[in-house]
Amino acid sequence: MSKKNKTRRPKARLPKGMRDGQAREIRAMNAMLEKIRAVYELYGFEPLETPAFEYSDALGKFLPDQDRPNAGVFSFEDEDKQWLSLRYDLTAPLARYVALNYDGLPKPYRRYATGSVWRNEKPGPGRFRQFTQFDADTVGAPVGAADAEMCMLMADVMEAVGIKRGDYVIRVNNRKILDGLREIVGLADSEHDGKWLTVLRSLDKYDKFGIDGVKLLLGTGRKDDSGDYTKGAELDDNQIQIIVGFVIQFIESLIPLSESNLEEDHDEKLFNKDSAEGPYVLETDDMLEEWRENIFHESEIGLQGVQELEDMLNLFESAGYGTLRIQIDPSVIRGLEYYTGPVFEAEVTFDVKNDKGQVIQFGSVGGGGRYDGLVARFKGIEIPATGMSIGVSRLYTALQALGELEDETTGPMLVLVMDKERIADYQKMTQELRAAGIRCEMYVGGSGMRAQMKYADKRGAPCVIIQGDDERNAEEEMVTIKDLVEGSELSKQITDNKEWREGRPAQFSVKRDELVEAVRLVLKRHTGQEG
Amino acid sequence: MSKKNKTRRPKARLPKGMRDGQAREIRAMNAMLEKIRAVYELYGFEPLETPAFEYSDALGKFLPDQDRPNAGVFSFEDEDKQWLSLRYDLTAPLARYVALNYDGLPKPYRRYATGSVWRNEKPGPGRFRQFTQFDADTVGAPVGAADAEMCMLMADVMEAVGIKRGDYVIRVNNRKILDGLREIVGLADSEHDGKWLTVLRSLDKYDKFGIDGVKLLLGTGRKDDSGDYTKGAELDDNQIQIIVGFVIQFIESLIPLSESNLEEDHDEKLFNKDSAEGPYVLETDDMLEEWRENIFHESEIGLQGVQELEDMLNLFESAGYGTLRIQIDPSVIRGLEYYTGPVFEAEVTFDVKNDKGQVIQFGSVGGGGRYDGLVARFKGIEIPATGMSIGVSRLYTALQALGELEDETTGPMLVLVMDKERIADYQKMTQELRAAGIRCEMYVGGSGMRAQMKYADKRGAPCVIIQGDDERNAEEEMVTIKDLVEGSELSKQITDNKEWREGRPAQFSVKRDELVEAVRLVLKRHTGQEG
Repeated sequence: MSKKNKTRRPKARLPKGMRDGQAREIRAMNAMLEKIRAVYELYGFEPLETPAFEYSDALGKFLPDQDRPNAGVFSFEDEDKQWLSLRYDLTAPLARYVALNYDGLPKPYRRYATGSVWRNEKPGPGRFRQFTQFDADTVGAPVGAADAEMCMLMADVMEAVGIKRGDYVIRVNNRKILDGLREIVGLADSEHDGKWLTVLRSLDKYDKFGIDGVKLLLGTGRKDDSGDYTKGAELDDNQIQIIVGFVIQFIESLIPLSESNLEEDHDEKLFNKDSAEGPYVLETDDMLEEWRENIFHESEIGLQGVQELEDMLNLFESAGYGTLRIQIDPSVIRGLEYYTGPVFEAEVTFDVKNDKGQVIQFGSVGGGGRYDGLVARFKGIEIPATGMSIGVSRLYTALQALGELEDETTGPMLVLVMDKERIADYQKMTQELRAAGIRCEMYVGGSGMRAQMKYADKRGAPCVIIQGDDERNAEEEMVTIKDLVEGSELSKQITDNKEWREGRPAQFSVKRDELVEAVRLVLKRHTGQEG
Repeated sequence: MSKKNKTRRPKARLPKGMRDGQAREIRAMNAMLEKIRAVYELYGFEPLETPAFEYSDALGKFLPDQDRPNAGVFSFEDEDKQWLSLRYDLTAPLARYVALNYDGLPKPYRRYATGSVWRNEKPGPGRFRQFTQFDADTVGAPVGAADAEMCMLMADVMEAVGIKRGDYVIRVNNRKILDGLREIVGLADSEHDGKWLTVLRSLDKYDKFGIDGVKLLLGTGRKDDSGDYTKGAELDDNQIQIIVGFVIQFIESLIPLSESNLEEDHDEKLFNKDSAEGPYVLETDDMLEEWRENIFHESEIGLQGVQELEDMLNLFESAGYGTLRIQIDPSVIRGLEYYTGPVFEAEVTFDVKNDKGQVIQFGSVGGGGRYDGLVARFKGIEIPATGMSIGVSRLYTALQALGELEDETTGPMLVLVMDKERIADYQKMTQELRAAGIRCEMYVGGSGMRAQMKYADKRGAPCVIIQGDDERNAEEEMVTIKDLVEGSELSKQITDNKEWREGRPAQFSVKRDELVEAVRLVLKRHTGQEG
């Protein structure tokens, strides 16, 4: 014991907030990423890969949690005393890339990128410190059509990965509208940054607490069912009335299909088709008119935001992306400080359950918006840009809930090692099967037959290949194929152990030189039976 | 000026030793990775993904440059004062994963993994601080067949990515043979570690300097053509004679095909087929016999190594992987300290040129070997393991030299914006083309026609779609397709500018509702012409 104690062994453990990805998940995830990639390519975006870390000053700090200024990134110093940080998103490195390569790039520059990002934040259930994003951005695009395109791209991605129309929605808002509101209620000064953040947070809670909840949060505060108290923004009645009036105008413009002017049942015009009260129609013209005349009439930026929203709606409608797919939602905030115009997020509208089978508030699977100032950090000139980001793990979780993820890879054929002296013969069989494109391996562990059969089971091997002395030395060399899939089916029917052993069901012998063909037939039979 | 100076702008720059990956390269790289993945799957390996960083103590430090103990990894401290390091390879995280999940894993556990790794080393030409590896490993596999399989897997990968048989070779050695040599020449004590490292480095130079160069390096040292002097290992004559004798036995067992007993011309038996003196055959039996009787007769570990090598050769031969694909090479060292048995590396044998067109010493594109001690760091019990790693960037560079990499993605169709008021119409065309699976975009920049045509050219757009007022207002709405590929061909033939402008070659109009079909025909014609 004394000797052993001398060696201090490290403990095998995962870093906090990290996880290992398993085979089934990786394959399904890759299949999903390929579908997203195909849509991005279809839209004319080009791939770009930037390094995992950047100089900290070049990366800047544009994290959603602006109120936790010290948290966020993983950083380290290099040997010449410059600070480096692991990227926390794919947008900041894009800004660095564009600034560095501006002259040589096509304008607009349209790129997509995917990869890990890292956040030095408190991990929680489903909240990891490393996760994958999949972004598309257009840099050097001043027109609203570029933003509209991002929303349509997001909608197309949803359908490409297997979410049916009506099971998702892209909700759109515009930062200029929110800036207009801020102006009107007299909080435009930077000294009110904190208060305004609370206002935005309150608006963001509309989905959860309804308009009455928002009212409380804009005022003194709100106590939830558990008794927890959330402090409010402490606006005065006039301020609250303006902000609530803005949201109410939206709510009142949603009218039941039966009361609308819509002549025929046109899916594309529908809003919340599956709501308990039946489908709604958004009377967009009325709403925008009200906003213009009664809310934003004195705010230039607000009016500009309303106009941009209207222009985008026209593009959606013309291109056939009606309100069932892309909808206005004045409560969409998006956390990032750098957005300057249209913002949007993608939500799934079907039920997603947690591990305990409870339906959870799932939130968005991605989003984006316009950020005209990000490249300006380096260049000093404004370069208009717009983009979107998909939270790959969240989308994956949503697809899992839908049952839309399948890994069709079967386990490998397993060639058993009956006799260690004859391993070269087994290896030859294995390579023959592989050369024929059949997923296969020879057992390379150190254990006997029992362990080998257990291993075959654990790996999900459809068959094992067996050759003992009898088969080897037969007048004509033979090999035995044991069909584990069929065997497992049969074993459910046969209860008598003895009968099982003697019958050796789902097991047959073929001539050695017919091995590949015979395995192929078994696999074909499985696919035929199963598919 | 005074105002501007107040804003300190960060400089857009790449971290030292880092690079950005461009579209063409990313697409070709992904296609290559998919081919590798398919072979790994065929061999029955399962994917695994571990995080980018690990606790530093769990990762350990097994870098090739053992003589620079302070260099190597990028590390940082987390908030509870534990050190984390970015992974420098994919093997150390595998050891952590296996130790953490040992009981639940199938045994043997066969996994593949790909991803970035990071080395805090001095960057140089073609030597970056972030690069990609693609590994396969079998943990819990004590038998030599598991090592042999790795070599065959490596050979199959070479062919899968497009390197013809004869254009690559997998060179195999065994650490136990080298350990045997070390024992025989009396350098087994750890006090001789440094000296032995110099011996291994000298052996490693056999390819470059031949046996005479190795002799000098084992002795006092060697002066190269430029006058630079490399200090030798300073072995005595007897020691040098043993080591050189070991290599010479290998060289002498390589005999020209014409002098061999080989009755027919059997490609699989050939060694260095393309050498100036014609093909060789390795008289393996003679060589191994000599090694056993005259070199390693007094070293148990040496004899064990020779036996392991012989067993592997039998497996290769039986499975049809003869010496043209997998060859013994006693000068293969592999840098990593943790190897304990068979080691091998994959080399391309065709010429690879650098940027200046000079043929360069290209070295290996991957390799691997047996490491029975790595998981033992955590578990205290030895868990035999063997694996291989592909240096993805190096393999990519080799394939570039072969011309085996192609990105067949064409640029997107471009719908021009002739009239900003009618952007919704252009957007509709764009979405129609996309819905038909045609890569397409509408111009979303802010510039006029000239810039739009330049953009189309820069993006490699096969066509642009144009609709002005004339076409829009025609009795039947029309749209013009300008074929840029054909246009570029024609412009080579037409030298008269006026004739060009008037003829408007490669440009034609179709009815608006026939747009998709017409674009499809143009694309089909291109593929027909080009392919």
